[in-house]
Amino acid sequence: MQAEMGVVHTDVLRPEAADVEALSAFGVATIHEAMGRVGLMRPYIRPVYAGARLCGPVVTVLLQPGDNWMIHVAAEQVRRGDVLVAACTTESEDGFFGELLATSLQAQGCAGLVIDGGVRDVADLERMDFPVFSRAIHAKGTVKETLGSVNVPVVCANALVYPGDVVVADVDGVVVVPRARVAEVAEASRKREENEESKRARFKAGELGLDLYGMREPLAAKGLRYMP
Amino acid sequence: MQAEMGVVHTDVLRPEAADVEALSAFGVATIHEAMGRVGLMRPYIRPVYAGARLCGPVVTVLLQPGDNWMIHVAAEQVRRGDVLVAACTTESEDGFFGELLATSLQAQGCAGLVIDGGVRDVADLERMDFPVFSRAIHAKGTVKETLGSVNVPVVCANALVYPGDVVVADVDGVVVVPRARVAEVAEASRKREENEESKRARFKAGELGLDLYGMREPLAAKGLRYMP
Amino acid sequence: MQAEMGVVHTDVLRPEAADVEALSAFGVATIHEAMGRVGLMRPYIRPVYAGARLCGPVVTVLLQPGDNWMIHVAAEQVRRGDVLVAACTTESEDGFFGELLATSLQAQGCAGLVIDGGVRDVADLERMDFPVFSRAIHAKGTVKETLGSVNVPVVCANALVYPGDVVVADVDGVVVVPRARVAEVAEASRKREENEESKRARFKAGELGLDLYGMREPLAAKGLRYMP
Amino acid sequence: MQAEMGVVHTDVLRPEAADVEALSAFGVATIHEAMGRVGLMRPYIRPVYAGARLCGPVVTVLLQPGDNWMIHVAAEQVRRGDVLVAACTTESEDGFFGELLATSLQAQGCAGLVIDGGVRDVADLERMDFPVFSRAIHAKGTVKETLGSVNVPVVCANALVYPGDVVVADVDGVVVVPRARVAEVAEASRKREENEESKRARFKAGELGLDLYGMREPLAAKGLRYMP
Amino acid sequence: MQAEMGVVHTDVLRPEAADVEALSAFGVATIHEAMGRVGLMRPYIRPVYAGARLCGPVVTVLLQPGDNWMIHVAAEQVRRGDVLVAACTTESEDGFFGELLATSLQAQGCAGLVIDGGVRDVADLERMDFPVFSRAIHAKGTVKETLGSVNVPVVCANALVYPGDVVVADVDGVVVVPRARVAEVAEASRKREENEESKRARFKAGELGLDLYGMREPLAAKGLRYMP
Amino acid sequence: MQAEMGVVHTDVLRPEAADVEALSAFGVATIHEAMGRVGLMRPYIRPVYAGARLCGPVVTVLLQPGDNWMIHVAAEQVRRGDVLVAACTTESEDGFFGELLATSLQAQGCAGLVIDGGVRDVADLERMDFPVFSRAIHAKGTVKETLGSVNVPVVCANALVYPGDVVVADVDGVVVVPRARVAEVAEASRKREENEESKRARFKAGELGLDLYGMREPLAAKGLRYMP
Repeated sequence: MQAEMGVVHTDVLRPEAADVEALSAFGVATIHEAMGRVGLMRPYIRPVYAGARLCGPVVTVLLQPGDNWMIHVAAEQVRRGDVLVAACTTESEDGFFGELLATSLQAQGCAGLVIDGGVRDVADLERMDFPVFSRAIHAKGTVKETLGSVNVPVVCANALVYPGDVVVADVDGVVVVPRARVAEVAEASRKREENEESKRARFKAGELGLDLYGMREPLAAKGLRYMP
Repeated sequence: MQAEMGVVHTDVLRPEAADVEALSAFGVATIHEAMGRVGLMRPYIRPVYAGARLCGPVVTVLLQPGDNWMIHVAAEQVRRGDVLVAACTTESEDGFFGELLATSLQAQGCAGLVIDGGVRDVADLERMDFPVFSRAIHAKGTVKETLGSVNVPVVCANALVYPGDVVVADVDGVVVVPRARVAEVAEASRKREENEESKRARFKAGELGLDLYGMREPLAAKGLRYMP
Repeated sequence: MQAEMGVVHTDVLRPEAADVEALSAFGVATIHEAMGRVGLMRPYIRPVYAGARLCGPVVTVLLQPGDNWMIHVAAEQVRRGDVLVAACTTESEDGFFGELLATSLQAQGCAGLVIDGGVRDVADLERMDFPVFSRAIHAKGTVKETLGSVNVPVVCANALVYPGDVVVADVDGVVVVPRARVAEVAEASRKREENEESKRARFKAGELGLDLYGMREPLAAKGLRYMP
Repeated sequence: MQAEMGVVHTDVLRPEAADVEALSAFGVATIHEAMGRVGLMRPYIRPVYAGARLCGPVVTVLLQPGDNWMIHVAAEQVRRGDVLVAACTTESEDGFFGELLATSLQAQGCAGLVIDGGVRDVADLERMDFPVFSRAIHAKGTVKETLGSVNVPVVCANALVYPGDVVVADVDGVVVVPRARVAEVAEASRKREENEESKRARFKAGELGLDLYGMREPLAAKGLRYMP
Repeated sequence: MQAEMGVVHTDVLRPEAADVEALSAFGVATIHEAMGRVGLMRPYIRPVYAGARLCGPVVTVLLQPGDNWMIHVAAEQVRRGDVLVAACTTESEDGFFGELLATSLQAQGCAGLVIDGGVRDVADLERMDFPVFSRAIHAKGTVKETLGSVNVPVVCANALVYPGDVVVADVDGVVVVPRARVAEVAEASRKREENEESKRARFKAGELGLDLYGMREPLAAKGLRYMP
Repeated sequence: MQAEMGVVHTDVLRPEAADVEALSAFGVATIHEAMGRVGLMRPYIRPVYAGARLCGPVVTVLLQPGDNWMIHVAAEQVRRGDVLVAACTTESEDGFFGELLATSLQAQGCAGLVIDGGVRDVADLERMDFPVFSRAIHAKGTVKETLGSVNVPVVCANALVYPGDVVVADVDGVVVVPRARVAEVAEASRKREENEESKRARFKAGELGLDLYGMREPLAAKGLRYMP
């Protein structure tokens, strides 16, 4: 399943739009828990401006270091609402992406970018409200010389991403939901939030987690000692 | 003095509330100077949202990596105005703390959290105005399996912290003031600020530090040469 | 050309004010491209508050680790509109610079600071609107014991900087424009922006980079394959 | 394909032993090139002692942070010649592995360990000649509390690894060869080395790469200028 | 207990030599376990040459960044067999220590150095067989301008160290044993090694940890599933 | 003086061979001190095998990220005894250099490589005794697509390097000696070593630095207090 170079897959099976919509109501931490604590990218991927948030089906692109050629190739494969997830064959913090490419992607309906690399024109990206999550901000330009691939499975910031998966990103990080699990995870997230609502009320009323979760007994069993 | 595991100390000698209040008027850089340039945590501890600031007596908690059980134990030990300082037995950036725990701590009167680990639900923390200073933001959940301790002395981000010390945190970093020195350091901070006020006016008027501090002679003595 | 220690050069040849003014209209990414993709500092230099931006002729200062004495010496060499660029003889994240020094520099007409070190009093710097770009925020104070130099060529964050060069910094990074190239680079930046304007319109209209840049043929020549 | 938790797959389809043997003759750099420049782990995975080298079919284990329970579970799944590849659900540098576990694995015929975490007892590992490649050396012990999985696909140091793939590690890094490609990649590696042999002789004789690879013309076409 | 500046404590209560001798038989990982998994420095402290190892009572020194003056002060406080533990008031990787200082310390009977900073003359240190554990190797020289302290409690690489504690360092890391616990920890380490001996034999004979530690039942209770 | 792209300077003024020979007798730490504590590269540049050491006049090459084309161009400019210093326009840890290129450079008489990037075939480099100092070891291959320059001034690991300067590298780091200062620095290094010889004898005899350097008085003047 390792990425083949120089290939563009043009058919991506996307999840149901309603399921993506349902999932978009939840935060990354909730979704990650609802999935069984899997699917997170490494936390070095950060929003490039405060308040950035995105959720959508994935078009993947595999970049070469210091080379953004394949982002142009990927732009043609984007459908309205898609998120571009850009991995790189090695670690590279150059500015693969800026305002012109964002203008192009936004015109194609792209809902945002997650990139294991650097971006630039960050003030413009914020003004355009084009959400980007990246490993670096760097003005350094890139070349257009070497082929990568589009819509192959990629590993991005240590997370495996298939085209058609759904990626959700907010201030807490980035999570990848496999296409086949989107509806299930949205539902599990809803239940988790419901469940948290009742806990929240009890916490607000001053009840302790020790009691709410019944922790006193297992803590004592492990040997916890209270000392004045 | 190394931390004992599985122990909760329930009696914490706190400083006078008036002294904590006095100290809270000053910034971290000022306090650190007033103490003789000691007491700072490493600068990788950062506010999780812009404008976060806290000052209060410390309840300490020693966590195990990827395990937030002891934060629930610590919640019961918090008194109104206390700050929770969470160290970890090793380096761990998982999301030990989120909105539900913040709700619980806030209900107990907790004034904020300093943690040598990761946190999540950062948008909620900002909305709740619950100040948190951490080494990472990470959606990754944690387990509740292994004992640590509460209100033992801990080393957090390379600073030694005793329960009942006062911790102050703002955009410049985090400083720990020993309980016995709170009043003295508040007073020294006040004097330092007073002293700076007069300097500020002279700087604003265009006087140079070279003259204000009488530096020209010692610089020449060290051999500084001016060349056209 | 390696930096001599204990020297202050008092005569700095500065570029034409009109050229600096012209250059100040452009962002760091644009200028870096207009120069032929050179002149950038490493991306670990970041603005200390959102929205910081600066452009001006450079006064350089070479600091010793944990020692800010020479910033006071440099303050006297600053002319209205200058930017102070502070390098260090080794890596040091201490708080070399804070509100009092900013007050002094601002009174001298200084337009901002770029420092390969730490700074503090960040809330004050933002309030004063004194733009600072640094490698760290750290409350740790510094001493005044060892000579460095002022207005010698320095390497700052891996970029070579001469006194009288122009430095431009914004959210995308920091770029150094040699004094002799300021007018040329401002003009090249203007042309680049003009050229981008027409592309932007075409991207907005939905044209793809593949067509706008004529990339389909070179991609095919490299062997790019489309697979359904 | 994201990892399921709490699962042990007991049937692993391994490649032909002869193909693994063939592959073991080549270095990581050669194999990575022969595969088309894919399959490398991030370079932070390093041998824990000089001269460590390994090649074998993979048994995977997915660990929880600070918890090595599943390595014991994995030990039972190892067949003679296998290499254990240990990923972790988050970043953790604790000492998951030491001399006792190495003794157990070696007794099962295990050919070595690649782990995106820390190890200890490194002097013993070297004495036992049990090759280990890790992200850290750390004496910190781990617990046995939380389930992970064995023989699920994992992402280890940003590389996707399936059970039954072949992993090769030496001083240059770690590469993963998909099971289905082992024979092909061994053959491609052999050809690459053959091809390099003739080049090596010409280089030794003083011929330049500029001539050997016919680079002078393409360099001139790109505009390279020679200046006295 | 925070470090006072400009103070040299000349009376250090050291542990019994026989207890230190007993402790020196064990590795860092074993000792850390025998203490209850506390006392480790952060793993960025590494031996500067292969095979370095040390064990001895601690003389502490608190350094200022880029300043090694206090190491000369500390040299006078060293008794035969002592280890110097050098902390710094901030992060600094300069070369605080080299061959001349090592010659001086060795002449005083010093058994080695642990330093949260940089060192140089590493080839000489190896030749002299003077074991050093540091955070960096760096040729950069330091000044002698600012006071620190000797034999105050320090935090070194996130571990609290008192004068008279015993520090043990080997390839696995650095551990600090409080003076009052040296005999007890040596004995606990001995028992741990004894206990491991019998396990080692059973592992060598092919018994699995799953059986040796009785893990099958608790794993099943947690829900581990085996799938063909 | 910023690097021009696409240029090869063929005339390099080299220092006298006898002066380079004289300098080669000294270690990096000594030379750096003899120069007045300037000229060091950042300490992340490390020897790729134990015992590597080099000294020679510099041929510079400026690389593009993930692209080693210009090393082939530089090979032609190397004269017997030269050291190649390779900077990169951005941070890149790919394996720019391996055994074949080392064979070619060695055949041209090249005395070694310093590179602010990654290298591979490290076991071969050691076997060939071709000394390399790099920021990373990485098997990742590179392309040959984009022009850089040869024998332009470069900034490598934060040090400014001109063609014809002399670079010296050993286990302590890498130092750059300007061409015009080679003889002077060799002589100053010799004097420094002479001076150290007498100190070494006195240290060995047990004399303290406090007395040898006359530090007791200045320490007391700064306020150092001895406390029983």
